[in-house]
Amino acid sequence: MTIDGWTCPMPLRDQPNVVLGHGGGGKLGNELIRHLFLPAFDDVHLQDLADAATLEVPAGRVAMSTDSFVVRPLFFPGGDIGELAVNGTVNDVAMRGAAPRYLSVAFILEEGLPLATLARIVASMAEAAKRAGVGLVTGDTKVVDKGHGDGVYINTTGIGVIPDGIDIGPARVRPGDVAIVSGTIADHGMAIMSVREGLGFESDIVSDTAALNGLVSELLNAGIDVHALRDPTRGGVASTLNEIASASDTGIVVDERTVPVRRPVASACEMLGMDPMYVANEGKLIAFVPADQAEAALATMRAHPLGEGAALIAEVVDDHRGMVVGTTPLGATRVIDTQVGEQLPRIC
Amino acid sequence: MTIDGWTCPMPLRDQPNVVLGHGGGGKLGNELIRHLFLPAFDDVHLQDLADAATLEVPAGRVAMSTDSFVVRPLFFPGGDIGELAVNGTVNDVAMRGAAPRYLSVAFILEEGLPLATLARIVASMAEAAKRAGVGLVTGDTKVVDKGHGDGVYINTTGIGVIPDGIDIGPARVRPGDVAIVSGTIADHGMAIMSVREGLGFESDIVSDTAALNGLVSELLNAGIDVHALRDPTRGGVASTLNEIASASDTGIVVDERTVPVRRPVASACEMLGMDPMYVANEGKLIAFVPADQAEAALATMRAHPLGEGAALIAEVVDDHRGMVVGTTPLGATRVIDTQVGEQLPRIC
Repeated sequence: MTIDGWTCPMPLRDQPNVVLGHGGGGKLGNELIRHLFLPAFDDVHLQDLADAATLEVPAGRVAMSTDSFVVRPLFFPGGDIGELAVNGTVNDVAMRGAAPRYLSVAFILEEGLPLATLARIVASMAEAAKRAGVGLVTGDTKVVDKGHGDGVYINTTGIGVIPDGIDIGPARVRPGDVAIVSGTIADHGMAIMSVREGLGFESDIVSDTAALNGLVSELLNAGIDVHALRDPTRGGVASTLNEIASASDTGIVVDERTVPVRRPVASACEMLGMDPMYVANEGKLIAFVPADQAEAALATMRAHPLGEGAALIAEVVDDHRGMVVGTTPLGATRVIDTQVGEQLPRIC
Repeated sequence: MTIDGWTCPMPLRDQPNVVLGHGGGGKLGNELIRHLFLPAFDDVHLQDLADAATLEVPAGRVAMSTDSFVVRPLFFPGGDIGELAVNGTVNDVAMRGAAPRYLSVAFILEEGLPLATLARIVASMAEAAKRAGVGLVTGDTKVVDKGHGDGVYINTTGIGVIPDGIDIGPARVRPGDVAIVSGTIADHGMAIMSVREGLGFESDIVSDTAALNGLVSELLNAGIDVHALRDPTRGGVASTLNEIASASDTGIVVDERTVPVRRPVASACEMLGMDPMYVANEGKLIAFVPADQAEAALATMRAHPLGEGAALIAEVVDDHRGMVVGTTPLGATRVIDTQVGEQLPRIC
């Protein structure tokens, strides 16, 4: 049986869809592990099927981060929930300057999900993990009854090793720093929004989902004294800048005219009345560096495929502490506040 | 405002229930973190609110394990989903002989969930973490629209440090070993089942949910050469014995007459036509040790509050490899196979 290009292994053929028993401790659960997860993830740590994976780490500091992914739809222009789940956690770990090493993967499946859909997501996760250089080392599967999920929810939790001497965190940001974004903003959120709203932008607007650990390594290897790193996901660039202003007790001045936005993304935002500054990104980072290292940081980023569109967008000042002030595209000044909720629910 | 004994902090009062915005990157999400999660979890690693927690680990091996919890109902005799989520992952890490240290916590909340319910679960998690001696160091919250969740789903992922010289895993089990269970079986599964079916056993049957890392430490400190450890959760003791027989390529002979089951639990199983050997436990372990250390292991377990009812239940043999054979309470012999699905969906 071949569904969507995926050949269902013999033992799974009797149940082409997820049933509650796939979440139990019995044969159905074992078949899912042995015929779907293990061949795809192919990590030595998974092979012994113990309650926990045994991993080697050097002495020192590790970074740990967790994220659940509930994005809708599961597949969208430029990516899918599986790729997003790997890249999202890899990025959170990398934002501490850590080298992501190991990821756990936990699925909450809804009864009735086609196994072929799960197989496609799992294949996408395996590819993303390979690209990011991380191992998917331990996992869990639960099944909930129809009407109590939405196909697939995925949690990934990652650990990474922080190199000696690296200290990256919002508290290190100070007046005189500048903020550099690694490329165009709002691509991910508008890609999701376009398909949900049926705007017909699918070919023009694609998610930017990507693993940023390679780009972070380049910055550190280049000797840039990175003070803080953030990937502006939920809440977008505006929320990230506000968090940094608040955590570092500084003011931030952003020139919105310098913030890169692709034309079709800007058009879609206009049509839907959305502000790109608040729209989620999944493959961009904002680096806070001392002003005298701005040029070096920009050059390093631009030499990397994921940083080609890097731009200096903001300055950290000793004024209006905890607040972000922007110069709008029309040259006016506005306070860029944190929004109350989220423009786009279930964006990741 | 006080709901269920929980006083809603001022900033949350306008929204006594979870709304989609609580899962965004904005003010509502921040309020949830600052006024509900941080005061309860109170861990130094959480305070900087970065994308990832920075943790200290010694050089060597760490164990990593992940589990999502989708149990229904959220509150049951003897525990709740929060306590279960902490203990479950602590136990999986401990089954590698590791000392659990850090847990991540990720919530998938359903729109409309009363914040007071969430607060009760969060308080329960904080207490369970304190008892187990682990820190809740990093977290995530997503909100899904009504009808796409079931109040609360929780993922916890844990990491623990494996002491030097400890090598615990199913591959070490060999003929001549014996299996010791730390106490009565089937309590958790039947506690859930009793409330779901309205059997009225609530006062007699309570979940055994507990963190077993202390008991594991006692065994290791006593110098017992533990070959394998498992907590028989989904699929119960029967599935755990089958997994070990399969992974170690040995046969297992279990004398069901020696397996401890509380009387009301046995009665409930009989009424519902369920086999206690297949019912989930959440605070029991099975230790495989060499036969000549059985007495020492039993004595060590019985001296610990969570091992008072420890009993030797099975022997590992060089016969019928990969298979578990039982002597039934009536003295007959049967093959104890792995079940196909799960007797009780959403048990954890």
